[in-house]
Amino acid sequence: MTVTRTDLANAIRALSMDAVQAAKSGHPGMPMGMADIAEVLWNDFLVHNPKDPGWINRDRFMLSNGHGSMLHYSLLHLSGYDLPIEELKNFRQWGSKTPGHPEYGYTAGVETTTGPLGQGLANGVGMALAERLLAARFNRPGHDVIDHHTYVFLGDGCLMEGISHEACSLAGTWKLGKLICFYDDNGISIDGHLEPWFTDDTAKRFEAYGWQVVGPVDGHDPEAIKAATEAARAEQHKPSLIICKTIIGHGSPNLAGTHDCHGAPLGENEICLTRENIGWPHEPFSVPEEVYAGWDARGKGEAAQSAWNHKFKAYKEAYPEDAAELERRMRGELPAGWNDTVKALIDGLRQEKPNIATRVASGKAINAIAPTLPEIVGGSADLTPSNNTIWKGATELVPPLISGNYIHYGVREFGMATVMNGLSLHGGFLPFGGTFLIFSDYARNAIRMSALMHQRVIYVLTHDSIGLGEDGPTHQPIEQVNSLRLIPNMTLWRPCDAVETAVAWTQSVENRKGPSCLILSRQNLPAQNHTDETVAGIAKGGYILSEAANGQPEGVIIATGSEVALAMGAQAKLAEQGKHVRVVSMPSLEVFEKQDAAYKESVLPAKLTKRLAVEAGSTGLWYKYVGLNGAVVGLDRFGESAPAPVLFDKFGFTVDNVVARYQAL
Amino acid sequence: MTVTRTDLANAIRALSMDAVQAAKSGHPGMPMGMADIAEVLWNDFLVHNPKDPGWINRDRFMLSNGHGSMLHYSLLHLSGYDLPIEELKNFRQWGSKTPGHPEYGYTAGVETTTGPLGQGLANGVGMALAERLLAARFNRPGHDVIDHHTYVFLGDGCLMEGISHEACSLAGTWKLGKLICFYDDNGISIDGHLEPWFTDDTAKRFEAYGWQVVGPVDGHDPEAIKAATEAARAEQHKPSLIICKTIIGHGSPNLAGTHDCHGAPLGENEICLTRENIGWPHEPFSVPEEVYAGWDARGKGEAAQSAWNHKFKAYKEAYPEDAAELERRMRGELPAGWNDTVKALIDGLRQEKPNIATRVASGKAINAIAPTLPEIVGGSADLTPSNNTIWKGATELVPPLISGNYIHYGVREFGMATVMNGLSLHGGFLPFGGTFLIFSDYARNAIRMSALMHQRVIYVLTHDSIGLGEDGPTHQPIEQVNSLRLIPNMTLWRPCDAVETAVAWTQSVENRKGPSCLILSRQNLPAQNHTDETVAGIAKGGYILSEAANGQPEGVIIATGSEVALAMGAQAKLAEQGKHVRVVSMPSLEVFEKQDAAYKESVLPAKLTKRLAVEAGSTGLWYKYVGLNGAVVGLDRFGESAPAPVLFDKFGFTVDNVVARYQAL
Repeated sequence: MTVTRTDLANAIRALSMDAVQAAKSGHPGMPMGMADIAEVLWNDFLVHNPKDPGWINRDRFMLSNGHGSMLHYSLLHLSGYDLPIEELKNFRQWGSKTPGHPEYGYTAGVETTTGPLGQGLANGVGMALAERLLAARFNRPGHDVIDHHTYVFLGDGCLMEGISHEACSLAGTWKLGKLICFYDDNGISIDGHLEPWFTDDTAKRFEAYGWQVVGPVDGHDPEAIKAATEAARAEQHKPSLIICKTIIGHGSPNLAGTHDCHGAPLGENEICLTRENIGWPHEPFSVPEEVYAGWDARGKGEAAQSAWNHKFKAYKEAYPEDAAELERRMRGELPAGWNDTVKALIDGLRQEKPNIATRVASGKAINAIAPTLPEIVGGSADLTPSNNTIWKGATELVPPLISGNYIHYGVREFGMATVMNGLSLHGGFLPFGGTFLIFSDYARNAIRMSALMHQRVIYVLTHDSIGLGEDGPTHQPIEQVNSLRLIPNMTLWRPCDAVETAVAWTQSVENRKGPSCLILSRQNLPAQNHTDETVAGIAKGGYILSEAANGQPEGVIIATGSEVALAMGAQAKLAEQGKHVRVVSMPSLEVFEKQDAAYKESVLPAKLTKRLAVEAGSTGLWYKYVGLNGAVVGLDRFGESAPAPVLFDKFGFTVDNVVARYQAL
Repeated sequence: MTVTRTDLANAIRALSMDAVQAAKSGHPGMPMGMADIAEVLWNDFLVHNPKDPGWINRDRFMLSNGHGSMLHYSLLHLSGYDLPIEELKNFRQWGSKTPGHPEYGYTAGVETTTGPLGQGLANGVGMALAERLLAARFNRPGHDVIDHHTYVFLGDGCLMEGISHEACSLAGTWKLGKLICFYDDNGISIDGHLEPWFTDDTAKRFEAYGWQVVGPVDGHDPEAIKAATEAARAEQHKPSLIICKTIIGHGSPNLAGTHDCHGAPLGENEICLTRENIGWPHEPFSVPEEVYAGWDARGKGEAAQSAWNHKFKAYKEAYPEDAAELERRMRGELPAGWNDTVKALIDGLRQEKPNIATRVASGKAINAIAPTLPEIVGGSADLTPSNNTIWKGATELVPPLISGNYIHYGVREFGMATVMNGLSLHGGFLPFGGTFLIFSDYARNAIRMSALMHQRVIYVLTHDSIGLGEDGPTHQPIEQVNSLRLIPNMTLWRPCDAVETAVAWTQSVENRKGPSCLILSRQNLPAQNHTDETVAGIAKGGYILSEAANGQPEGVIIATGSEVALAMGAQAKLAEQGKHVRVVSMPSLEVFEKQDAAYKESVLPAKLTKRLAVEAGSTGLWYKYVGLNGAVVGLDRFGESAPAPVLFDKFGFTVDNVVARYQAL
């Protein structure tokens, strides 16, 4: 058998339709439609090594239209990654490496989790930016140790989503010439032929973003795809969108070109007909040796990486410190001296005892931390002066110079979060980004994706309650703190003063297993008295900030953030009445939950049933700590526009009301 | 004094800078920059009647860049709305009609709440669509009773946000020729001059959406603005974007053109200098009579409405039924016969007892309801076949024919939600829209806005848990049910069978005070036995679905949706062991909370302290019902890709595990 390009592509088609059929669910249409494009990209262009999916200078490849996961699994299997045919047979089954959508961390070679449309594309923008920033920092004349492309497959759905606008506008502004996107222009979405709901002139739209647009080309013509890819690679200063006209389910005689093959198995009968139609007589999950040979990328990949190893060795000899630093950053390890930075920051604040907003305290922490962590890339969605996210000595990324460590993302919260995910996934970066807490809503699913992918991304979310004041209900978070706490793998901190803020920051930097949200006040908060013990307690998420004066609390007031001061005030007033209560500051419920039972019991003893929680936000999650007999001073309605002190008073966030609510228990 | 156009515009400038100064917070830059545009639009084009802000055929005007609220308040005050100067002096104060951002329902003449950027623009798309759909339905030859424009002011921030892409793409597709948007192109955002983060060719981008782009024009030249507006109005088939080059803070000698005047008072000194510079010698909050006279729109407005009343009278005579129907719809009242529809639907399902997915049950409810409610506009964000949102006899909106009652929104969840808000705010419509529950994340802030504005918008959110199965963690909601419950004014229903689904639907239609989320299963659920009493209980949000066999429960299992069947199974098994428990189905926590204490106590008596809650989602909110001694069978981690029955088994959603967890109490 002479193996043609079409045969190679048909291997993807066959594996995809067979795996979807075996799973009795999945999306065969996209892999069958994009098979030819994938074949050209992977066999003629993609620089990667199936034997070392972690090679730092590999090209990044991702499917933004992640429902077509079988395309990616087919590519990984055929080209020689650790993904045996059994895994394809187990597509979408419990414990397999082939989940329904590509999941980062499950499958070697999967660079990001996709499925929520548009975000893979946006992660690609982050990855291409990462490449550019690393290259600017580390490459030296004659030593291009960081030099790779980022390739993205995407579909109509990605382009309809608003996130495509935010991310692609940034990519154009940043002139990410090594970002190359293949648009699967098949004219079909789940509701059918998409003329009635998608009439954009996409080429014109992307030109408006400063992209190079190539095509439309015939997405089933390998030569046309190859030429288009070459044109894209030739353009150094603009990201490229290659518009590929394809037929969804290409090869299926009766379902190609219809939405019926988008998200359901073709059926045994149609699969038989498709086999015949495309000339693929082989059994399900059987691929001829010649086809495997045509796909095998191991030799080429090892050669490529070996050449790069050689290059890196020369770099290391010429620039040993830079090489070591690059390696450290790609490993995600903190630099030597980190603990000293932390200690100096916290000791300083304990001495200084500043009565400042926690957003200002966060700015102080950033100023202390960022100069010692070159992997940090900070930024804000156009609220830099409000979020206090920039620091002295930060280098702002200002096109055409794409380097630095501070990004003005513009008014693009979702775009910011997805780009941060891309930066983190690429490796070499610790991204943080700021916005008002309320606008975490706009980025909500990307924040979830940080958590799902266990990425160390830090969200700096300021103006954290009605304490925002006059901007009113649209800008006052009510449910946001609790709704972010609900995201699995999320660590949320709502510190009460500068010391708690500093601990929250350093804990977030040290947490390599997931994202953190720092929830920060607009208004000034008084410094609490801290001991070595309370500082250690902060890192445990919840601790006794102030024990009852007589050492024998009859009850406990639990609070976070700006309401800790109210709890302290109430404790003092209650003590005057002979009621001795404990004040527990609980900056992070998630971290507190991870402590052992003995510690938790020491902070919130079961016998202390008189419990009051105080937080200027929705009350729902607090009953876990106060129980059916406790109470919560919170806010389950929208706010109002007025100065913050008026709002705190009107809504019952006063010492007197906390005292009264405690007395009523 | 001869009053020039500039004098009229300067009244806005002066009121805005003075009010912001008095409030010690706010955004003077935008009102000062857009004053000339506003003056031309309001004095030469806007058809409205300050004496009747509810006139149904008024032009709609809204500020998408809502931080410039003083522009709108100035316009309302000057043109004769019920907004006395005292309210402007009370800008941003407790109880005023002039909150920091325009809030729907607070101020006569404010058509939508804005502030979260881009959404006002998107609401405008919904309003322009509403006008078009109502005109198509009600106008008759010679009787254009619905015929108005929708005008939107917007800024750079709106254009950077992804929502602008989704909404404007739809507006182009829908050919909303009577939507006219004024872009305040001032080159400044909070982080400064925006070249480093915003380089879109916006004109080209909007042409790509099928819009007419007018300009750029000098936004301080009334004649140029007038000509541009005329050009926009002349275009019948395309929405128009008028690009207005402006100077932020125009008139301020030292701060104009800088981001320093965006979001802070100018300061007393600069205000003095500005007064001098623009030739406005009057005291703060003092407007000369001649200027008031130049602005007064009451006479013109009453004449316009009077002419329309005359027109409507003729229409009413010629088409009495249509006129009555239009009036009913604009009042938001349900038609006669609604109760019969509800009764027939529920009685039918009680008889039929179908074991179907609640998304299918929702489809049945829609099929029963929609033909009787012409105000319904359904739709889906490209998941029509999965959401079961379309019904027999629905008329799909397919351009170029913009009429009908079913909208294919494409893959635009946020766009869908904002357009639904616009449809609802316009009046005459009851919008509902479907997507997977997980993608409510993408629309999160618009869902919040439905709640904040008390709009009757229904979100049909299917595939509500790990029961989604193979699509895996990106598609499996975990925290979404609880995080939607946290939104104030939101009513969320998670029904357990077809009857509960029908009640949830009809209750959502009847709730005119806010939005509802219907949380629906992908998988089939067994019909429960319903009595008149349990059906009445559903409408109370929580009820005893199955009392302990001996009538003396020792404990209670509370469940929602797909987990109610597990609770029922556990009840039976426990009874075999002599443990008699009550099963409470709680489809809506919010509705249950609104019941009186006696009813709540009858369902969940305080003495019943053995309590177990079962819901395939995050556990956090359930401790309010089970307390410190109870337990929750839930899921606080991300899901996995596998068939749903496998997932339910692996994650402990089995009768045996519910029994075991109850026994462990």
